[in-house]
Amino acid sequence: MKIILVGATGTMGKHLIAALEKEHEVIKISTKDADITSVASIEAMYKQIGPFDALISTAGPTFVGPWDKLTDTTFRKGIEGKLMGQINLVLIGQHYINPNGSFTLITGALAHEPQRNFANASAANGAVEGFVRAAAIELKNGIRINAVSPTVIEDSPQYFPFFPGEMPTTMKALEYGFRKSLFGAGTGQIIVP
Amino acid sequence: MKIILVGATGTMGKHLIAALEKEHEVIKISTKDADITSVASIEAMYKQIGPFDALISTAGPTFVGPWDKLTDTTFRKGIEGKLMGQINLVLIGQHYINPNGSFTLITGALAHEPQRNFANASAANGAVEGFVRAAAIELKNGIRINAVSPTVIEDSPQYFPFFPGEMPTTMKALEYGFRKSLFGAGTGQIIVP
Repeated sequence: MKIILVGATGTMGKHLIAALEKEHEVIKISTKDADITSVASIEAMYKQIGPFDALISTAGPTFVGPWDKLTDTTFRKGIEGKLMGQINLVLIGQHYINPNGSFTLITGALAHEPQRNFANASAANGAVEGFVRAAAIELKNGIRINAVSPTVIEDSPQYFPFFPGEMPTTMKALEYGFRKSLFGAGTGQIIVP
Repeated sequence: MKIILVGATGTMGKHLIAALEKEHEVIKISTKDADITSVASIEAMYKQIGPFDALISTAGPTFVGPWDKLTDTTFRKGIEGKLMGQINLVLIGQHYINPNGSFTLITGALAHEPQRNFANASAANGAVEGFVRAAAIELKNGIRINAVSPTVIEDSPQYFPFFPGEMPTTMKALEYGFRKSLFGAGTGQIIVP
């Protein structure tokens, strides 16, 4: 399977590459290869790669910080990044993906379990979840779409203090969430690993 | 209670005004009074009105149309309108609202029950829901925030064919959803009327 992985240098991306590239061709995309906040950059990426079977996104830039710093300007980080960035990966990528291919986006527990400092991520995650359910009934040629929704992840202990009461998602569970979307038959699902 | 109602000339807005203005001062805001896609316009509105007790938004512009017309450009209608428009009403309005005041935003069943042609609304609704839950734990001075989430509403029969299998929300139930947010004690709730 030819899999595009956007977010290749992140903590999740690196784990997924190691897990998947033994058996699959993984095209690794980091911010230096494509800027997901730019429609032109996404188009150029797909044109260069050509037909593919699956896209995984672990790219979710959002504004993290105190509520009193949250304004229209800071809120745009998540709107352009985790929200429109991932949605444009699908809206554009549907014209390049092979029949019966799949898109797997990243959302997160903050959509439903808010924590201080992360309102921008809560909104972006909620949008991605709504979009995934809607896109699943619109995409043609057997193309599927799901999202994986971890809480704070095991390999990012620097974030643990910001997620009181949240049992971290293990890297293994996270990987299996993506496997379910990649190799299962489900669509429109929010997979909680 | 001094209540700002944004979306005053819409179907929901007109019903709510009739229901609330017997007992409350309702400041009626339509698109000609304030443009919710403009931070400057929202600021000017609040400055002119001064302190208030509650804001209700029934303003939810989104792109409605076939999936193949959904692009970065058309998607922006819901991003700037129902999503950032309503979020900016809160981010800015929190500096003008009285202690123990409330914000009530509009979302909708499409967040969880997608229908063809409405992916933009599904995403915007999901974002508003995530934001409401997050803002509820951040707002100070006893300020509350909730969203009301109807399906297609009774007084908009022109939309019924686009919502197969959805029992329309009656105007009475919709009104009571807003009453729950306005006069109840809950915060961070997605009220399904």
